[in-house]
Amino acid sequence: MSESNASATRITPGNALRPEDIAASDVRPSEAVAEYALRLGDDALILAQRLGWWISRAPELEEDVALGNIALDQIGHARSFLTYAARAWDKTEDDLAYFRGEDEFRSTHLVEQPNGDFARTIARQLVVSQYQFALYSRLVSSSDATLAAIAAKAVKEVDYHRDHARQWVLRLALGTEESRRRMIEGLILTWPYVGELFEDDSLVKELEGTAVLPSSLRESFDAEIHGLFAEADLEVPEVPAAVGGGRRGEHSEHLGYLLAEMQVLAREHPGATW
Amino acid sequence: MSESNASATRITPGNALRPEDIAASDVRPSEAVAEYALRLGDDALILAQRLGWWISRAPELEEDVALGNIALDQIGHARSFLTYAARAWDKTEDDLAYFRGEDEFRSTHLVEQPNGDFARTIARQLVVSQYQFALYSRLVSSSDATLAAIAAKAVKEVDYHRDHARQWVLRLALGTEESRRRMIEGLILTWPYVGELFEDDSLVKELEGTAVLPSSLRESFDAEIHGLFAEADLEVPEVPAAVGGGRRGEHSEHLGYLLAEMQVLAREHPGATW
Repeated sequence: MSESNASATRITPGNALRPEDIAASDVRPSEAVAEYALRLGDDALILAQRLGWWISRAPELEEDVALGNIALDQIGHARSFLTYAARAWDKTEDDLAYFRGEDEFRSTHLVEQPNGDFARTIARQLVVSQYQFALYSRLVSSSDATLAAIAAKAVKEVDYHRDHARQWVLRLALGTEESRRRMIEGLILTWPYVGELFEDDSLVKELEGTAVLPSSLRESFDAEIHGLFAEADLEVPEVPAAVGGGRRGEHSEHLGYLLAEMQVLAREHPGATW
Repeated sequence: MSESNASATRITPGNALRPEDIAASDVRPSEAVAEYALRLGDDALILAQRLGWWISRAPELEEDVALGNIALDQIGHARSFLTYAARAWDKTEDDLAYFRGEDEFRSTHLVEQPNGDFARTIARQLVVSQYQFALYSRLVSSSDATLAAIAAKAVKEVDYHRDHARQWVLRLALGTEESRRRMIEGLILTWPYVGELFEDDSLVKELEGTAVLPSSLRESFDAEIHGLFAEADLEVPEVPAAVGGGRRGEHSEHLGYLLAEMQVLAREHPGATW
């Protein structure tokens, strides 16, 4: 299918590029950059898997389409990051998506959290979209031109995801007593996983100028959340932080089930060629 | 969310319009036209539900995106047809999607068939996309301007779905021994449900000039299938026709399970307002 719209997109910052372009280019990331790209790609891939579940299960048909589109955007971002990472090890995006074990995934615990009810999904969407928006807004200035180009495309789409989540938080928090109760409950269940997003480690410090230091995103994240919560008459939940460790491959039991479903077909038929 | 891109699209043939435009217009279908719109909308809605399952479960990430996009296109078509139908009874698209019983759905048995393996899904996609392409190509000339406008948008998207299915049939049929075996098996499992698509009844005869007579689409469908099968070295399966009855609300057990999943959230929280 990709043949019909093939193009020779050049990799320059600000220029959106497709996974096929990345795979065909001769730019190869260092192992450290590839490890970093895995983190971003895995966050997007696991989130997409969670969101895809909502297609035809949302409370409104319009919302089926909205969450479905967000899921597909996230798969698109995942494909780009994983394709780029894969070049460091002479692999493909599909090798990385379907043939890694749970402890090789570098996603945060936030994205593997269960969907719960619609309000809980929206709480997770609020956090992840605000985080990704702050991150990609800065990654467009990365010294790595491929990461910058992926971010330049992704940031526009994530800006919509952020707006979508914020509108729903307002609608639920300022709706009925029941919708407000559920929104608050969703935020309480989600907040233990916020801290992990903003933790620095040796990899991101080593990649100064290429990677975005997660801790440097916290201030703008908090400011945006506080602004929204003031409008929605909500408070930041005071809950203990969860253990974390996703960036080191330490995950909750949720990821195992999710990967089993995601990987079963590709593993039954390696290479997807039967 | 719809406010941000609201527009006052006029309903004229060939002019794509959105469900919001249809809901806001003062055009109201007769009950017969609404019954016909239900058939087209239900086919698209049930198919979308089946295809959405593949998101993050396809054999390749690229295919996740392709099937996901096809599912979202189909939800889009369903929303338009159901919104239009709903106006005849002062209801909404969501009333029709989430609050009808199994025997009120007017979809054919083809779209409620299980996904099976990837080849079976592709076999179903081949049949439904060729059928929808032939149907919408003719519906653009309907005397009903709303149906014509919905079809004008849908036919362009379904043309892509058809191309997607045909490319996969070729790839699987001419691939490995195993992929060919599975493609043939998928076609055998699918073909009993082909006949129902082309059956006329009193409703479509009554709506001459507005509805497309299903039997009139069979010849071009067969010609397209024969052309493809010649290229793919496949034969039209000789299998007995299944019982049918979907247009009268008689369904297989598959639809009940599918609707239970699709409707549970909306029914728990009527109006989706909690």
